[in-house]
Amino acid sequence: MTNLSTHSAARDHALALDRVDPLAHCRARFTLPDGVIYLDGNSLGALPKGVNERLHRAINEEWGVGLIRSWNDADWYPAPQRVGAKIAALIGANASEVIACDSTTVNLFKVLCAALEANPERDTIICEEGNFPTDAYITERTAKLYGKRVVLANQNTIESVIAEVGSRLCAVALTHVHYKTGRMYNMQRITELTQLQGARIIWDLAHTGGVIAVQLHDWRVDYAVGCGYKYLNGGPGAPAYVYVREDLIVSLDQPLAGWHGHAAPFSFEQGYRAHAGIDRMLVGTASQLSLISLEAALAAYDGVAMTDVRAKSESLTGLFIELFDAQLGTFGFDLVTPREAAQRGSQVSFSHPDGYAIMQAVIARGVIGDFRAPNILRYGFAPLYLTHVDIANAIAIIADVMGTGEWKRSEFSQKKAVT
Amino acid sequence: MTNLSTHSAARDHALALDRVDPLAHCRARFTLPDGVIYLDGNSLGALPKGVNERLHRAINEEWGVGLIRSWNDADWYPAPQRVGAKIAALIGANASEVIACDSTTVNLFKVLCAALEANPERDTIICEEGNFPTDAYITERTAKLYGKRVVLANQNTIESVIAEVGSRLCAVALTHVHYKTGRMYNMQRITELTQLQGARIIWDLAHTGGVIAVQLHDWRVDYAVGCGYKYLNGGPGAPAYVYVREDLIVSLDQPLAGWHGHAAPFSFEQGYRAHAGIDRMLVGTASQLSLISLEAALAAYDGVAMTDVRAKSESLTGLFIELFDAQLGTFGFDLVTPREAAQRGSQVSFSHPDGYAIMQAVIARGVIGDFRAPNILRYGFAPLYLTHVDIANAIAIIADVMGTGEWKRSEFSQKKAVT
Repeated sequence: MTNLSTHSAARDHALALDRVDPLAHCRARFTLPDGVIYLDGNSLGALPKGVNERLHRAINEEWGVGLIRSWNDADWYPAPQRVGAKIAALIGANASEVIACDSTTVNLFKVLCAALEANPERDTIICEEGNFPTDAYITERTAKLYGKRVVLANQNTIESVIAEVGSRLCAVALTHVHYKTGRMYNMQRITELTQLQGARIIWDLAHTGGVIAVQLHDWRVDYAVGCGYKYLNGGPGAPAYVYVREDLIVSLDQPLAGWHGHAAPFSFEQGYRAHAGIDRMLVGTASQLSLISLEAALAAYDGVAMTDVRAKSESLTGLFIELFDAQLGTFGFDLVTPREAAQRGSQVSFSHPDGYAIMQAVIARGVIGDFRAPNILRYGFAPLYLTHVDIANAIAIIADVMGTGEWKRSEFSQKKAVT
Repeated sequence: MTNLSTHSAARDHALALDRVDPLAHCRARFTLPDGVIYLDGNSLGALPKGVNERLHRAINEEWGVGLIRSWNDADWYPAPQRVGAKIAALIGANASEVIACDSTTVNLFKVLCAALEANPERDTIICEEGNFPTDAYITERTAKLYGKRVVLANQNTIESVIAEVGSRLCAVALTHVHYKTGRMYNMQRITELTQLQGARIIWDLAHTGGVIAVQLHDWRVDYAVGCGYKYLNGGPGAPAYVYVREDLIVSLDQPLAGWHGHAAPFSFEQGYRAHAGIDRMLVGTASQLSLISLEAALAAYDGVAMTDVRAKSESLTGLFIELFDAQLGTFGFDLVTPREAAQRGSQVSFSHPDGYAIMQAVIARGVIGDFRAPNILRYGFAPLYLTHVDIANAIAIIADVMGTGEWKRSEFSQKKAVT
């Protein structure tokens, strides 16, 4: 194995990897600011080229001139379905199984309710201990609404907890890749184990969509939700998406019955008749400007195979861990993310008691990651726009910030609203 | 009374009204396409100047360069509160009582649940017969979720139905201005009657916000929801808003418990603790681009008094009805909207058996309104950018389309996806 303890050696090694990267051309599809190595695409994806032009046209021509007519003439109306179909192609789903709408949390509510409504005699939802807070909150609150209970499991106990809950199990709701640790569940296996108990599986794909090669339909996943503003680069607060396996759609009942989920929204019928297809997951009017941004952003995936994206993700995270070992070993960090590629998503997290200040100091040097309380430094790797050299350079900067003690400056410990 | 049966006389009369319009200067705050008289601002508001520039900056500088840092540095994080405060000023609410988020339907779900959670021993929600479908759907479905019943009332029966339901009444959920007829409830009176029964009132302000001078706080309205893309001109599918009267916030419980409604979202606590303020109505991450568009759009209301807006709205709708009587009387139309100004919102609707084709033919001539099944031609009047001369010209074009029989051409009867 190459000795990667110097920046120069690491850089040469990274350059060699970049030379054979089949996705190298994709970086030109993004606008990336000078002086920044952006390792936070798992929080807010970078700006794809073309988004600004597309929104400029949407605002000035479609809205400004076309006005209300653009719901028909600019094809605004079928945008949730169109964007859903594009996302479906990235997560191994059929086009008719995915639709873009609302926020991840609202969509999670819909599928949790759908699972509970489908199996009213079962009383337990399994949720992950330490899951992303919004998943924990909405699961707990939805269970309360239906008079059900939540049982917690973690990556180590999930299989035995599913077995224990057994015939009481209604649904298992998990985030595929853990937001803090980056640890990834075996989606196929947990899906099968859940369904063996006659229960439904719900996957939150927040850190999966656009970066991990999953096959929702073939793996017979029941429901999934995901986020438009992380690896899909849809822009701040981009609409989320929801997946329902084809055969479950027609009987699906969820409480957010709104006019865009109706079989015939513009007949203005007084009674709700759910749309026969995935449209029944819609509620109100689509947030069109944000949806147009997401649609334009998805062009960055044109002609890209998800297997290549995943392979590069493994390569980038693998290199980061190698260089972490070789160059950051003496600074008191603990690696949190699994070393085995199959067990991790596209992120690497490590902990440090002074993680907050260190992250701020490193950000000030242009290497952007984020901090997750209480002590996690989290770096996400977006394969479409990152190079291996970015990784080598980022590690060198972190090493420098640690070596010089720069992070101890008082300005870096001041908390910001959003961390 | 002036004889307004000719276009020339009507135009002179309109010009005289425009000369004394205190809001005349506001038209320059909008981009309006040539050859169009836009009477559909109650469906999608026109494009305010400044929105494009603001979004250009948000996309290229804040997202493109600032990236994740912009949640702090560009003040993205407090945008829902900031936009809420601006809207509050237009509906007679305190800044701390309104927040911008999600869709109208999702917000309606939150406040319906809040009312039901607050009064679990009461079992009835009153909803309007013939209300906008999404209101009817979500009310019916939420009632079912809680095992409650919905009782229908209409503008004529509402007072007696409230009295009849009496102590079983949990909430009354009404749209202030009817989407089809334009008829307006007496908000103060219905609010009082509802509260006299110990129940909560919910007003949908879809056709009220930004055009009718209401005083939510002083009239002690409990809850309200409203739309960002109609008279507020926030752009297609702009975020909606929700109002909760100050004293009801701290005990409010709603099931869409998401991380942005938490007391400390970035502490990543596992248990939900609702924010002490209106933030508890938030769920997921704000749709930032759409929210920025809405915020920029609200600048069109700078320095504008809602009493002036309402006065002009009455003047515009009043003129439309006068000219309707004088020039459209022989074409088989029936006026649907009340003639008495205090009983109507900022729209005028009339019916015709061939309403769909007539509306399409008139739109083809540049006068844009919309059709509402089965037979309603609906025109909305946005006082910030319309003149009285627009009304005179619109009536002349409708008269011409009817007089020539132009609307009978086969192309105008072909249904579009969005009507």
